[in-house]
Amino acid sequence: MKRIYSVLVENRSGVLSRIAGLFSRRGFNIESLAVGVTETSDLSRMTIVTDADERTFEQIRKQLSKMIDTVRVKALSPDESVSRELVLMKLRGKNESIAAVCEKTGAKIIEETDDTVTVEITASDVSEILTAFDEFEIVETVRTGVISLQKGNSSII
Amino acid sequence: MKRIYSVLVENRSGVLSRIAGLFSRRGFNIESLAVGVTETSDLSRMTIVTDADERTFEQIRKQLSKMIDTVRVKALSPDESVSRELVLMKLRGKNESIAAVCEKTGAKIIEETDDTVTVEITASDVSEILTAFDEFEIVETVRTGVISLQKGNSSII
Repeated sequence: MKRIYSVLVENRSGVLSRIAGLFSRRGFNIESLAVGVTETSDLSRMTIVTDADERTFEQIRKQLSKMIDTVRVKALSPDESVSRELVLMKLRGKNESIAAVCEKTGAKIIEETDDTVTVEITASDVSEILTAFDEFEIVETVRTGVISLQKGNSSII
Repeated sequence: MKRIYSVLVENRSGVLSRIAGLFSRRGFNIESLAVGVTETSDLSRMTIVTDADERTFEQIRKQLSKMIDTVRVKALSPDESVSRELVLMKLRGKNESIAAVCEKTGAKIIEETDDTVTVEITASDVSEILTAFDEFEIVETVRTGVISLQKGNSSII
Protein backbone atom coordinates (compact mmCIF):
# COMPACT_ATOMS: atom_id res chain seq x y z
CA MET A 1 0.00 0.00 0.00
CA LYS A 2 1.21 3.46 -0.86
CA ARG A 3 1.75 5.71 2.12
CA ILE A 4 2.66 9.33 2.37
CA TYR A 5 4.76 11.35 4.80
CA SER A 6 4.34 15.07 4.84
CA VAL A 7 7.41 16.48 6.59
CA LEU A 8 8.01 20.07 7.65
CA VAL A 9 11.76 20.70 8.04
CA GLU A 10 14.14 23.54 8.78
CA ASN A 11 15.41 24.87 5.47
CA ARG A 12 19.13 24.33 6.09
CA SER A 13 22.07 22.73 4.34
CA GLY A 14 22.20 18.95 4.51
CA VAL A 15 18.62 18.31 5.61
CA LEU A 16 17.69 16.50 2.41
CA SER A 17 20.84 14.41 2.57
CA ARG A 18 20.08 13.41 6.19
CA ILE A 19 16.49 12.45 5.43
CA ALA A 20 17.38 10.52 2.27
CA GLY A 21 20.14 8.82 4.27
CA LEU A 22 17.64 7.67 6.91
CA PHE A 23 15.67 5.84 4.21
CA SER A 24 18.65 4.39 2.34
CA ARG A 25 20.54 3.13 5.41
CA ARG A 26 17.52 1.01 6.26
CA GLY A 27 16.96 -0.02 2.65
CA PHE A 28 13.54 1.65 2.53
CA ASN A 29 12.54 2.69 -0.94
CA ILE A 30 11.32 6.20 -1.71
CA GLU A 31 8.87 6.09 -4.58
CA SER A 32 8.74 9.81 -5.05
CA LEU A 33 9.91 12.88 -3.21
CA ALA A 34 9.09 16.52 -3.74
CA VAL A 35 10.50 19.37 -1.71
CA GLY A 36 9.65 23.03 -1.93
CA VAL A 37 9.57 26.16 0.16
CA THR A 38 6.53 27.01 2.31
CA GLU A 39 4.72 30.18 3.30
CA THR A 40 7.39 30.45 6.06
CA SER A 41 10.68 31.00 4.26
CA ASP A 42 12.89 29.15 6.76
CA LEU A 43 10.83 25.96 6.45
CA SER A 44 10.62 23.47 3.60
CA ARG A 45 7.95 20.86 3.17
CA MET A 46 8.65 17.43 1.76
CA THR A 47 6.14 14.94 0.48
CA ILE A 48 7.58 11.44 0.48
CA VAL A 49 5.69 8.48 -1.00
CA THR A 50 6.77 4.96 0.01
CA ASP A 51 5.41 1.48 -0.44
CA ALA A 52 6.16 0.24 3.09
CA ASP A 53 4.02 -2.05 5.27
CA GLU A 54 2.28 -0.61 8.37
CA ARG A 55 5.07 -1.50 10.80
CA THR A 56 7.91 -0.16 8.66
CA PHE A 57 5.95 2.99 7.89
CA GLU A 58 5.43 3.68 11.62
CA GLN A 59 9.10 2.98 12.32
CA ILE A 60 10.23 5.52 9.72
CA ARG A 61 7.70 8.06 11.01
CA LYS A 62 9.24 7.85 14.48
CA GLN A 63 12.76 8.18 13.10
CA LEU A 64 11.76 11.19 11.03
CA SER A 65 10.18 12.81 14.11
CA LYS A 66 13.41 12.46 16.07
CA MET A 67 15.57 14.24 13.52
CA ILE A 68 16.98 17.60 14.55
CA ASP A 69 15.80 19.26 11.31
CA THR A 70 12.23 18.05 11.63
CA VAL A 71 9.51 20.46 12.79
CA ARG A 72 6.60 18.10 12.17
CA VAL A 73 5.83 14.79 10.49
CA LYS A 74 2.35 13.83 9.40
CA ALA A 75 1.44 10.42 8.04
CA LEU A 76 -1.22 10.76 5.39
CA SER A 77 -3.38 7.97 4.03
CA PRO A 78 -4.59 8.32 0.44
CA ASP A 79 -8.22 8.27 1.70
CA GLU A 80 -7.81 11.18 4.06
CA SER A 81 -5.82 13.44 1.80
CA VAL A 82 -6.00 15.31 -1.48
CA SER A 83 -3.06 14.51 -3.74
CA ARG A 84 -1.84 15.89 -7.04
CA GLU A 85 1.07 15.24 -9.36
CA LEU A 86 2.39 17.27 -12.28
CA VAL A 87 3.96 15.74 -15.40
CA LEU A 88 5.58 17.34 -18.45
CA MET A 89 5.81 15.07 -21.49
CA LYS A 90 7.32 15.66 -24.94
CA LEU A 91 5.57 13.61 -27.59
CA ARG A 92 6.04 12.86 -31.27
CA GLY A 93 2.95 12.16 -33.37
CA LYS A 94 0.33 13.91 -35.42
CA ASN A 95 -0.21 17.23 -33.67
CA GLU A 96 -3.98 17.11 -34.19
CA SER A 97 -4.20 13.60 -32.72
CA ILE A 98 -2.22 14.72 -29.66
CA ALA A 99 -4.50 17.77 -29.31
CA ALA A 100 -7.53 15.45 -29.39
CA VAL A 101 -6.19 13.33 -26.51
CA CYS A 102 -5.41 16.52 -24.57
CA GLU A 103 -8.98 17.68 -25.05
CA LYS A 104 -10.29 14.35 -23.73
CA THR A 105 -7.96 14.07 -20.72
CA GLY A 106 -7.62 17.67 -19.60
CA ALA A 107 -3.92 17.82 -20.53
CA LYS A 108 -2.62 21.17 -21.80
CA ILE A 109 -0.32 21.81 -24.74
CA ILE A 110 2.52 24.11 -23.65
CA GLU A 111 4.91 23.93 -26.62
CA GLU A 112 4.73 22.79 -30.25
CA THR A 113 7.58 22.34 -32.72
CA ASP A 114 7.50 20.92 -36.26
CA ASP A 115 7.63 17.36 -34.97
CA THR A 116 7.03 17.41 -31.19
CA VAL A 117 4.34 18.54 -28.77
CA THR A 118 5.00 19.15 -25.07
CA VAL A 119 2.04 18.65 -22.75
CA GLU A 120 1.37 19.46 -19.08
CA ILE A 121 -0.73 17.09 -16.96
CA THR A 122 -1.93 17.76 -13.40
CA ALA A 123 -4.10 15.10 -11.77
CA SER A 124 -4.67 13.14 -8.57
CA ASP A 125 -3.65 10.00 -10.45
CA VAL A 126 -1.70 10.75 -13.60
CA SER A 127 -1.19 7.11 -14.63
CA GLU A 128 -4.54 6.80 -16.41
CA ILE A 129 -3.95 10.00 -18.36
CA LEU A 130 -0.43 8.90 -19.31
CA THR A 131 -1.85 5.68 -20.73
CA ALA A 132 -4.11 7.70 -23.01
CA PHE A 133 -0.95 9.02 -24.74
CA ASP A 134 0.50 5.53 -25.32
CA GLU A 135 -0.18 5.66 -29.05
CA PHE A 136 2.43 8.43 -29.48
CA GLU A 137 6.22 8.25 -29.25
CA ILE A 138 7.38 9.58 -25.89
CA VAL A 139 10.49 11.71 -26.43
CA GLU A 140 10.92 12.45 -22.72
CA THR A 141 9.00 12.81 -19.45
CA VAL A 142 9.58 14.58 -16.16
CA ARG A 143 7.36 14.21 -13.07
CA THR A 144 7.22 16.12 -9.82
CA GLY A 145 6.22 13.20 -7.62
CA VAL A 146 3.03 13.42 -5.58
CA ILE A 147 2.19 16.25 -3.15
CA SER A 148 -0.60 15.95 -0.59
CA LEU A 149 -2.58 17.86 2.01
CA GLN A 150 -4.87 16.36 4.63
CA LYS A 151 -8.55 16.73 3.78
CA GLY A 152 -10.63 19.09 5.89
CA ASN A 153 -9.59 22.29 7.62
CA SER A 154 -6.63 21.10 9.72
CA SER A 155 -2.97 21.86 8.95
CA ILE A 156 0.37 20.14 9.58
CA ILE A 157 1.27 22.58 12.38
CA MET B 1 20.73 33.46 -11.14
CA LYS B 2 18.55 30.41 -10.88
CA ARG B 3 19.91 27.38 -12.69
CA ILE B 4 18.46 23.98 -13.27
CA TYR B 5 19.94 20.50 -13.46
CA SER B 6 17.90 17.76 -15.05
CA VAL B 7 19.42 14.47 -13.93
CA LEU B 8 18.56 10.98 -15.15
CA VAL B 9 19.60 8.39 -12.56
CA GLU B 10 19.37 4.67 -11.96
CA ASN B 11 16.39 4.04 -9.72
CA ARG B 12 18.22 2.29 -6.88
CA SER B 13 18.49 2.57 -3.12
CA GLY B 14 20.64 5.42 -1.86
CA VAL B 15 20.84 7.44 -5.05
CA LEU B 16 18.95 10.42 -3.61
CA SER B 17 21.09 10.34 -0.49
CA ARG B 18 24.31 10.35 -2.55
CA ILE B 19 23.17 13.24 -4.75
CA ALA B 20 21.91 15.31 -1.82
CA GLY B 21 25.19 14.54 -0.03
CA LEU B 22 27.20 15.89 -2.97
CA PHE B 23 25.45 19.25 -2.60
CA SER B 24 25.54 19.44 1.20
CA ARG B 25 29.22 18.42 1.58
CA ARG B 26 30.15 21.41 -0.55
CA GLY B 27 27.65 23.71 1.14
CA PHE B 28 25.69 24.22 -2.08
CA ASN B 29 22.09 25.07 -1.52
CA ILE B 30 19.27 23.21 -3.26
CA GLU B 31 16.33 25.55 -3.78
CA SER B 32 13.96 22.83 -4.88
CA LEU B 33 14.15 19.20 -5.87
CA ALA B 34 11.59 16.95 -7.46
CA VAL B 35 12.12 13.31 -8.26
CA GLY B 36 9.78 10.97 -10.05
CA VAL B 37 9.81 7.85 -12.19
CA THR B 38 10.22 8.08 -15.96
CA GLU B 39 8.83 6.22 -18.97
CA THR B 40 11.65 3.70 -18.30
CA SER B 41 10.86 2.12 -14.95
CA ASP B 42 14.47 1.59 -13.82
CA LEU B 43 15.29 5.27 -14.26
CA SER B 44 14.25 8.27 -12.18
CA ARG B 45 14.53 11.86 -13.23
CA MET B 46 15.40 14.67 -10.84
CA THR B 47 14.98 18.36 -11.40
CA ILE B 48 17.23 20.36 -9.09
CA VAL B 49 17.07 24.15 -8.89
CA THR B 50 20.02 26.01 -7.36
CA ASP B 51 21.12 29.61 -7.09
CA ALA B 52 24.81 29.01 -7.82
CA ASP B 53 27.17 31.21 -9.86
CA GLU B 54 28.40 30.00 -13.28
CA ARG B 55 31.62 28.40 -11.96
CA THR B 56 29.99 26.55 -9.07
CA PHE B 57 27.17 25.39 -11.29
CA GLU B 58 29.63 23.90 -13.81
CA GLN B 59 31.62 22.28 -10.98
CA ILE B 60 28.51 20.54 -9.62
CA ARG B 61 27.48 19.49 -13.11
CA LYS B 62 30.82 17.69 -13.54
CA GLN B 63 30.53 16.02 -10.13
CA LEU B 64 26.98 14.85 -10.89
CA SER B 65 28.17 13.43 -14.25
CA LYS B 66 30.85 11.36 -12.52
CA MET B 67 28.46 9.66 -10.12
CA ILE B 68 27.92 5.94 -10.60
CA ASP B 69 24.11 6.32 -10.47
CA THR B 70 24.00 9.05 -13.10
CA VAL B 71 22.89 8.21 -16.63
CA ARG B 72 22.84 11.79 -17.88
CA VAL B 73 22.99 15.35 -16.57
CA LYS B 74 21.67 18.28 -18.50
CA ALA B 75 22.10 21.89 -17.43
CA LEU B 76 19.03 23.90 -18.37
CA SER B 77 18.82 27.67 -18.49
CA PRO B 78 15.42 29.22 -17.79
CA ASP B 79 15.42 30.76 -21.31
CA GLU B 80 15.90 27.47 -23.13
CA SER B 81 13.45 25.40 -21.13
CA VAL B 82 9.78 25.11 -20.27
CA SER B 83 9.22 24.92 -16.52
CA ARG B 84 6.20 24.29 -14.36
CA GLU B 85 5.49 24.04 -10.65
CA LEU B 86 2.45 22.71 -8.80
CA VAL B 87 1.19 24.10 -5.49
CA LEU B 88 -1.63 23.00 -3.19
CA MET B 89 -2.82 25.67 -0.77
CA LYS B 90 -5.45 25.54 1.97
CA LEU B 91 -7.00 28.95 2.55
CA ARG B 92 -9.43 30.52 5.01
CA GLY B 93 -11.60 33.37 3.79
CA LYS B 94 -14.91 34.09 2.13
CA ASN B 95 -15.40 31.18 -0.26
CA GLU B 96 -16.83 33.43 -2.99
CA SER B 97 -13.84 35.81 -2.74
CA ILE B 98 -11.44 32.86 -3.04
CA ALA B 99 -13.40 31.57 -6.04
CA ALA B 100 -13.10 35.00 -7.67
CA VAL B 101 -9.30 35.01 -7.33
CA CYS B 102 -9.19 31.46 -8.72
CA GLU B 103 -11.19 32.59 -11.73
CA LYS B 104 -8.75 35.46 -12.33
CA THR B 105 -5.52 33.44 -11.88
CA GLY B 106 -6.43 30.06 -13.33
CA ALA B 107 -6.20 28.34 -9.94
CA LYS B 108 -8.62 25.44 -9.36
CA ILE B 109 -10.68 24.69 -6.28
CA ILE B 110 -10.22 21.03 -5.31
CA GLU B 111 -11.85 20.89 -1.86
CA GLU B 112 -14.19 23.07 0.18
CA THR B 113 -15.15 22.75 3.86
CA ASP B 114 -17.25 25.08 6.01
CA ASP B 115 -14.30 27.38 6.65
CA THR B 116 -11.49 26.41 4.27
CA VAL B 117 -10.89 26.12 0.55
CA THR B 118 -8.06 24.07 -0.98
CA VAL B 119 -6.78 25.26 -4.34
CA GLU B 120 -4.45 23.77 -6.96
CA ILE B 121 -2.09 26.04 -8.91
CA THR B 122 0.08 24.97 -11.87
CA ALA B 123 2.18 27.66 -13.56
CA SER B 124 5.61 28.44 -14.97
CA ASP B 125 6.06 31.00 -12.18
CA VAL B 126 3.68 30.42 -9.27
CA SER B 127 4.91 33.35 -7.16
CA GLU B 128 2.72 35.93 -8.86
CA ILE B 129 -0.38 33.77 -8.47
CA LEU B 130 0.43 33.07 -4.81
CA THR B 131 0.60 36.83 -4.19
CA ALA B 132 -2.94 37.17 -5.54
CA PHE B 133 -4.13 35.04 -2.59
CA ASP B 134 -2.32 37.21 0.00
CA GLU B 135 -5.58 38.70 1.29
CA PHE B 136 -6.65 35.30 2.69
CA GLU B 137 -5.34 33.36 5.67
CA ILE B 138 -3.00 30.61 4.48
CA VAL B 139 -3.68 27.49 6.55
CA GLU B 140 -0.98 25.46 4.81
CA THR B 141 0.91 25.11 1.54
CA VAL B 142 2.78 22.33 -0.22
CA ARG B 143 4.82 22.76 -3.40
CA THR B 144 6.40 20.27 -5.78
CA GLY B 145 9.41 22.35 -6.72
CA VAL B 146 10.04 23.19 -10.37
CA ILE B 147 10.26 20.62 -13.17
CA SER B 148 11.69 21.48 -16.59
CA LEU B 149 12.21 20.15 -20.10
CA GLN B 150 14.45 21.68 -22.74
CA LYS B 151 12.54 23.61 -25.40
CA GLY B 152 12.41 22.15 -28.90
CA ASN B 153 12.42 18.54 -30.00
CA SER B 154 15.56 17.22 -28.25
CA SER B 155 15.56 14.96 -25.19
CA ILE B 156 17.91 14.36 -22.24
CA ILE B 157 19.17 11.07 -23.74
